[in-house]
Amino acid sequence: MSDLDRVLAAVDADLDASIERLFALLRIPSISTDRAYAAECRRAGQWLVDDLASLGLTARLNDTPGHPIVTARSEQGAARRVMFYGHYDVQPVDPLELWGSPPFEPQLVDGPDGSRRIVARGSSDDKGQVMTFVEACRAYLKVTGSLPVDVTVLVEGEEENGSGNLPSFLAANRGKLAADIALVCDTSMWNSTTPAITVSLRGMMHDEIVVTCANRDLHSGYYGGAAANPLHVLSRIVGAVHGSDGRITIPGFYDGVVEPPDEVKAQWAALDLTPENFLGPVGLSQPIGEQGRSLVEMTTSRPTFEVNGMWGGYIGEGAKTVIPSIATAKITCRLVAGQDPVHVRDAVRAFVRGHLPADCSVEFLSGDGSPAVAVAHDNPDLAKAAGALADEWGKPPVTVGAGGSIPIVGHFKKTLGQDTLLVGFALDDDRIHSPNEKYNLASFHKGIRSWVRILAALAE
Amino acid sequence: MSDLDRVLAAVDADLDASIERLFALLRIPSISTDRAYAAECRRAGQWLVDDLASLGLTARLNDTPGHPIVTARSEQGAARRVMFYGHYDVQPVDPLELWGSPPFEPQLVDGPDGSRRIVARGSSDDKGQVMTFVEACRAYLKVTGSLPVDVTVLVEGEEENGSGNLPSFLAANRGKLAADIALVCDTSMWNSTTPAITVSLRGMMHDEIVVTCANRDLHSGYYGGAAANPLHVLSRIVGAVHGSDGRITIPGFYDGVVEPPDEVKAQWAALDLTPENFLGPVGLSQPIGEQGRSLVEMTTSRPTFEVNGMWGGYIGEGAKTVIPSIATAKITCRLVAGQDPVHVRDAVRAFVRGHLPADCSVEFLSGDGSPAVAVAHDNPDLAKAAGALADEWGKPPVTVGAGGSIPIVGHFKKTLGQDTLLVGFALDDDRIHSPNEKYNLASFHKGIRSWVRILAALAE
Repeated sequence: MSDLDRVLAAVDADLDASIERLFALLRIPSISTDRAYAAECRRAGQWLVDDLASLGLTARLNDTPGHPIVTARSEQGAARRVMFYGHYDVQPVDPLELWGSPPFEPQLVDGPDGSRRIVARGSSDDKGQVMTFVEACRAYLKVTGSLPVDVTVLVEGEEENGSGNLPSFLAANRGKLAADIALVCDTSMWNSTTPAITVSLRGMMHDEIVVTCANRDLHSGYYGGAAANPLHVLSRIVGAVHGSDGRITIPGFYDGVVEPPDEVKAQWAALDLTPENFLGPVGLSQPIGEQGRSLVEMTTSRPTFEVNGMWGGYIGEGAKTVIPSIATAKITCRLVAGQDPVHVRDAVRAFVRGHLPADCSVEFLSGDGSPAVAVAHDNPDLAKAAGALADEWGKPPVTVGAGGSIPIVGHFKKTLGQDTLLVGFALDDDRIHSPNEKYNLASFHKGIRSWVRILAALAE
Repeated sequence: MSDLDRVLAAVDADLDASIERLFALLRIPSISTDRAYAAECRRAGQWLVDDLASLGLTARLNDTPGHPIVTARSEQGAARRVMFYGHYDVQPVDPLELWGSPPFEPQLVDGPDGSRRIVARGSSDDKGQVMTFVEACRAYLKVTGSLPVDVTVLVEGEEENGSGNLPSFLAANRGKLAADIALVCDTSMWNSTTPAITVSLRGMMHDEIVVTCANRDLHSGYYGGAAANPLHVLSRIVGAVHGSDGRITIPGFYDGVVEPPDEVKAQWAALDLTPENFLGPVGLSQPIGEQGRSLVEMTTSRPTFEVNGMWGGYIGEGAKTVIPSIATAKITCRLVAGQDPVHVRDAVRAFVRGHLPADCSVEFLSGDGSPAVAVAHDNPDLAKAAGALADEWGKPPVTVGAGGSIPIVGHFKKTLGQDTLLVGFALDDDRIHSPNEKYNLASFHKGIRSWVRILAALAE
């Protein structure tokens, strides 16, 4: 029997105790957004420090201006080191009356589909996921006395509150946090039987476009027909951004965009992500992105231009016959690997200025941006983790990008120089941030086993 | 010496007494929007009834659910009858501290340009203008014992408050108010030396366009690139309404539009209405209307499509990465002679529906409209009034349309079947609705003389 098999057997044998430990952590109401729970947040952090120290790791609770950050390190002198990230803080529990059981009294129950579930605030987001990794380390250390790779654990207490103190902590502890790769356990599986690794996150450029025509609002009877209307001007600009083929027409917008390899695209095309199951639930049926691209591409590997808000003129009850002076649009562009946020900002602004008629002026009020972060498709650690997950779940994981941003991953790249593999075992129906949050027992159990396999694979 | 010359001489000789009578009316604070002044409104109406009765007219104060309406009639059995309309109510006087003299204590003062001015609330809008007509009748009756045409006087007390009770009063008194033409004295001259007759008013069609895509707001990271955005859809629609030549592209929009005769267009082209003096003061320099059309055409004889307000998505501080579910635009179309509001509404709606992509739905929340009202350019009374004004002012009046609506004129046409000539002697610097409202003594004096000449001319 290999070391790996013996460790996996220990995980199975120790499952009840693993659940008990998770329950102890779930009983601490570490709500980070409510200062009344500050002491509970510290208690949750301290609980983790104590638990990680009991494994033989060098663990400490690091004070910040907000809630403390847990760090722990093994010091084996292994050839490789991974940094694991999670968070011990949880969302508020309102509305309490919608919970079937007290949110901080974890229960093991049978779900309507027969699956065993752990019900508690934080069970899925993110205490249950954090403990999959801790329990994997515990099993390894218990069975073999060592870990396949050196491990740094970083568990913060402000993720649900914006992670405001994490970037400066990373910058101040670059040396202590150095590792070959970051592992984040705060995401979902593709579905309950298919694991997933998220290897890219789109970046973002945000801007606010303010078009001014006349120097005051005008009466549409007196001036109507002669005076420029900024809502017409801004509408023409927004209307010109997308071609009839769904492509963004802004010159230079796609500069640098990297195409995924054909085999990755083929994998995506084979996924069961269809207009029916993806858009149907929100009342839509037809993807509006670039023609010839799959839904996965549209939402993860292709950039977007989106008007998030737009307004001008009279927006109250009834009619008011005004030609407004000002019209405004808030926009965000989702960026993909290879795009420079400053270049995209400048391209968008040049496009707007180029479409501006005489007499109209434009101001841009933001222009902030952050680039996409992505692990190269041929990164060897990606293949190793994928193989480990395939062994555990009996099928290869889906390797996808996330359409949105997870800011900490950008910080890991920018501040620590680390690529990140996001491997999580949550499910879409876990009701994170909502009443009756749950984490499937299978997610917890096979999640632990998955980390055991990934740690072994990353050592190779 | 002709009757006309003797009447004009009497106007000149009687001017001081005319001013005294106007001052008596100006001293009554008949603010219609403030119920605290209801008794003052009635007092102003009664003052007019008494004054008109003193001329030998059959005058009465007609109760309404709001402020009373003054009517007076001559019963000479003349071949023709005119109906004169004005209003005795005035705007509130706030902010009082900006007045140089008490608003209801009229003063005769020298203006900075040397002109004599009557300063008081209502001096220009509309008591001074009403009294130009009353004094003209008084002079005629005093000198000749009769009027050249029979006269019906209609002076309401709710013009500044929406004229809410006038339409039903017109409907209930069709017979008593029958006349060959309506005369309204509530408008301005072209400039201080050039009179004007307004012979058309644009109509209006108002609608609210609500475009819905997804059944809820979506996260722009997760759905961005695939899900339709109603702000993009609505922008494309609004952006498609106007061609690059300024023409409205909606099929059927211009159906029925009547072109003014070439000589009228030539007169308009000769007016000193330029981009510099019309658009310059509001910070614009270039008319955006149909290429090849004059500014007068753009703002009075051509229809418009205007977005008065538009909104959707997140319009608060900062950024929110949302794809909104709903976008809304409030629009008004200004209509000209020959256009049917229902036809325009249907054309606009068909255009919107025709530009709606799959998955999007649209609702229209209004669609109300009223047609333009216009006197035919070859109406003989128009030529008579124009000749009379030319005799008084030494140059022909400008014959223009108004870009906006004056609802009562529509009611005169619809309910009483009367065309309206709007002849007023106010000036753009009269500060109506503002502190220190004034009416030039020349407007008052030559206004009385103008009506004497118009009454004579209309009898011919």
